[in-house]
Amino acid sequence: MASQGFWPFGAEDGGDNTRAWCQAAQKFTGGLGSKLCGIPARKQQEAGVESCGCNKPCGCYKSNIDFSVLYSTDLLPASEGEVATLSFLQEVVDILLPYIVQTFDRSTKVIDFRYPNELLQENNWELSDNPETLEDILLNCRTSLKYAIKTGHPRYFNQLSTGLDMVGLAADWLTSTANTNMFTYEIAPVFVLLEHVTLKKMREIIGWPDGKGDGIFSPGGSISNMYAMLVARYKMFPEVKEKGMSAVPRLIAFTSEHSHFSIKKGAAALGIGTDSVVLVKVDERKIISDIHTCFIFQGYVPFFVSATAGTTVYGAFDPLIAIADVCRKYKIWMHVDGAWGGSLIMSRKHRWKLNGIDRANSVTWNPHKMMSVPLQCSALLIREEGLMQKCNQMHACYLFQQDKHYDLSYDTGDKALQCGRHVDIFKLWLMWRAKGTIGFEAQIDKCLELSEYLYNKIKNREGYEMIFDGKPQHTNVCFWYIPPSLRYVEDKDERMKRLHKVAPVIKARMMEYGTTMVSYQPQGDKVNFFRMVISNPAASFEDIDFLIEEIERLGQDL
Amino acid sequence: MASQGFWPFGAEDGGDNTRAWCQAAQKFTGGLGSKLCGIPARKQQEAGVESCGCNKPCGCYKSNIDFSVLYSTDLLPASEGEVATLSFLQEVVDILLPYIVQTFDRSTKVIDFRYPNELLQENNWELSDNPETLEDILLNCRTSLKYAIKTGHPRYFNQLSTGLDMVGLAADWLTSTANTNMFTYEIAPVFVLLEHVTLKKMREIIGWPDGKGDGIFSPGGSISNMYAMLVARYKMFPEVKEKGMSAVPRLIAFTSEHSHFSIKKGAAALGIGTDSVVLVKVDERKIISDIHTCFIFQGYVPFFVSATAGTTVYGAFDPLIAIADVCRKYKIWMHVDGAWGGSLIMSRKHRWKLNGIDRANSVTWNPHKMMSVPLQCSALLIREEGLMQKCNQMHACYLFQQDKHYDLSYDTGDKALQCGRHVDIFKLWLMWRAKGTIGFEAQIDKCLELSEYLYNKIKNREGYEMIFDGKPQHTNVCFWYIPPSLRYVEDKDERMKRLHKVAPVIKARMMEYGTTMVSYQPQGDKVNFFRMVISNPAASFEDIDFLIEEIERLGQDL
Repeated sequence: MASQGFWPFGAEDGGDNTRAWCQAAQKFTGGLGSKLCGIPARKQQEAGVESCGCNKPCGCYKSNIDFSVLYSTDLLPASEGEVATLSFLQEVVDILLPYIVQTFDRSTKVIDFRYPNELLQENNWELSDNPETLEDILLNCRTSLKYAIKTGHPRYFNQLSTGLDMVGLAADWLTSTANTNMFTYEIAPVFVLLEHVTLKKMREIIGWPDGKGDGIFSPGGSISNMYAMLVARYKMFPEVKEKGMSAVPRLIAFTSEHSHFSIKKGAAALGIGTDSVVLVKVDERKIISDIHTCFIFQGYVPFFVSATAGTTVYGAFDPLIAIADVCRKYKIWMHVDGAWGGSLIMSRKHRWKLNGIDRANSVTWNPHKMMSVPLQCSALLIREEGLMQKCNQMHACYLFQQDKHYDLSYDTGDKALQCGRHVDIFKLWLMWRAKGTIGFEAQIDKCLELSEYLYNKIKNREGYEMIFDGKPQHTNVCFWYIPPSLRYVEDKDERMKRLHKVAPVIKARMMEYGTTMVSYQPQGDKVNFFRMVISNPAASFEDIDFLIEEIERLGQDL
Repeated sequence: MASQGFWPFGAEDGGDNTRAWCQAAQKFTGGLGSKLCGIPARKQQEAGVESCGCNKPCGCYKSNIDFSVLYSTDLLPASEGEVATLSFLQEVVDILLPYIVQTFDRSTKVIDFRYPNELLQENNWELSDNPETLEDILLNCRTSLKYAIKTGHPRYFNQLSTGLDMVGLAADWLTSTANTNMFTYEIAPVFVLLEHVTLKKMREIIGWPDGKGDGIFSPGGSISNMYAMLVARYKMFPEVKEKGMSAVPRLIAFTSEHSHFSIKKGAAALGIGTDSVVLVKVDERKIISDIHTCFIFQGYVPFFVSATAGTTVYGAFDPLIAIADVCRKYKIWMHVDGAWGGSLIMSRKHRWKLNGIDRANSVTWNPHKMMSVPLQCSALLIREEGLMQKCNQMHACYLFQQDKHYDLSYDTGDKALQCGRHVDIFKLWLMWRAKGTIGFEAQIDKCLELSEYLYNKIKNREGYEMIFDGKPQHTNVCFWYIPPSLRYVEDKDERMKRLHKVAPVIKARMMEYGTTMVSYQPQGDKVNFFRMVISNPAASFEDIDFLIEEIERLGQDL
């Protein structure tokens, strides 16, 4: 049931919250209190809320509070700080809410771009010995948002993570308010259980029997991939934990040349070395088609194959079944980096691209990308239960007491590399409840439909050249825009040299106008091209049309 | 200037926000819109806000909205979803605000404890195909908070991270709303610059010349410590990045036996191995006094010493100057793990405990612990500029385009192990602006004063035995409570065996009553004892008195 009217705390709690406010207001005996309680009792009757005998404010926490004379020390836990606190926090919310509305308003800019030096010169952002007033703090909040990127804007296509989900945002505000971490059940009972429930659900969707296995929410896809490599190494050579790499043979890992750089970063960090990561050649987008021939490195032990489900630039999916066969034959850990493409498994229409994922030993799946969960939310899923715990646990009895009064299997801290771990689960879980699996599916299908629309629109359009043939597998549409002056240049080198400079200029102009943002990059022997991706449920056909018009507007003179 | 009255968006923005709301309300042409716009225009005049010609709601976003018929698909980016969105988010805020007020109310419970099975049985938390209504979503929010730990409660002493800072919380809400990451300047201009400013300030405080050097905010102290070890190894053997550990000699690292387990976790992950971490014996709390004698491991190359500034259990500080001398002599990387104790450098009274920290090569410093910044906020600071970049960069041109139109030194993504990195800076920066350095100092001094009060109160009190002699160096006060029945038991083994069970029972009772929470653990040959820590600025002398009374109340029959 919705609350009944004008009151800051709903009536649906039987008046408990209403009373809490009134007690707070009554405690505040100064001028502020009487101002806040000065709203006529008539309003209470109109709203049908039971009277508590005090003149309660009507939702207007901030009435007449002069923040220019208040400091953070006037807020809770300050004695009688309740009213100032509620007013201050409501004031902050009242800065955030219009920003959220504007985020989805196509007439607002995606970005009000300033160069680093401009921002530093125009703003005094130094940290000093003395405090600022709360008025200054609120001003700092406004300024920070003024120059922020509206990552939920329907025309922000710059990253794999875009969009601003309202339920996810609400969940993140709640997570901040709960201010705990995932270390033990004791300090995060609900979040620990929700992680348990959600990881199991994700494993079921992957197709592992009964959803059994293990997993963790980690600080991003790169760390998830590193975890996978760490656990794979431990599985093959458990002695590495105590003895280090000197006790094991030279290892070698395989991934495609289009895989994410985190595979090499992970190998460098884990002491395996980047030279031990073989980047298998790809045939245009068809990847790891001939992985067999790679396993002839004398004296090296292959231990890890990372198949990519949705490459960063092309959005291509490695052939998972073929890779699974190879891994089975050679008894190698099969990891699927589905940071970007893993979410397609939620779509009945597109999940075939992930066929074979159920044969993986581990999967990275970032709901903060294609599912629009607020940053950060990355899951690493592991097929074998208990392995992660064995790999990482240090049995620190001062952290994980073994004589506590509840089921200690929920104290998951020792299986992580981290000690305290940020609560990333609630936003995903709450969004899942709000959308259902079919809601995520609809959202994902829509983004893929938009990318197909874009592809169809430009594949034969004058001034465009596609980077690869055929329909994109994910929402990645990669293309060159060829300005009129370049369309008839016959010298190939000259043409490539000039084309290389086109995308950076158009991108810089996009940011200066603030109308849209899309990524560009070179890849291999291909000069700078646009990589369009769509993960934002706010985007529409109209926005795709706009992007094309804008590229042409900004690039026609080049 | 504070806003003028009842309006959800302040007048201080020259009416922009007010107009934004009105436009949103006007767009909403259905029954909902007219209800929301049904507030008499007279109220506008009273509030002195310029009229926009529409009947604007008076702060009551949620009036009469029936969330039981709405779904997440009715919220933005849904067409005309503005009003429902604002109402929904305000409803969520109205769930959070009373929770915040209650957090500081000593008459509320710290925890409403339930066993895992109870929570799972009482609540249906499964994820299904179909969506829930927004009313259900709001109910999920309430339930989650009902069973959450109030980590800001003045009597929550369970972790090194406690407290709920109002400015930090506001900053975290803003961070969630901005929903971006620290990958490049392009997608997080303000946050990237604020990280730059803040890291420099922290290095200045450490005492490095002109605040020069490097650093990063990482997902917690364990990862910061792992980063330090990674960079130290690279500094001594840069070839390890490409060649792995097989190209370098056997390495060895030193830390005290009371150091945090993350040093060993890091060594295991990095392929160094836990056997290569020498845990130097400590003399009660005086740590690493004789580190010289440890450097006689034949065939091993010492590369890393991690001195602890504030151990997890005892809160002890290693002698940094002596350790710096040793590290200089043997040319070894000196890391200071100040995750817990580093913040004492903000206090003129206590910073002497960190004397010598300016000679470190790297420092871990977690503002989310002693400075009460919301989780997570951990800094790794490195003296040598550029080293971290060299160690971790992979030059992925598809991620870090080199021909962008701004100063690329602000694209910090390639120096991290992560790709996208959560924005942890804004809450620290905003709190620092709000408190000033002297505000953090006052907060830290107060916590240390409280711990001294506790120490003085129990050191000679009947029924208490201190774990170590002398005044605590940090806020850690470690003690046994000896129930009356145990006070005259002469058999030492029998006494220890029974004493070991006392703290777990008292702790379980604390949680069942929900009155307070404090940690316990064994250490070395010492049976379970309480480790009291104070990092919450909300705690008072009264709360310390309460803790003692509560331990005695709950433990007297044991």
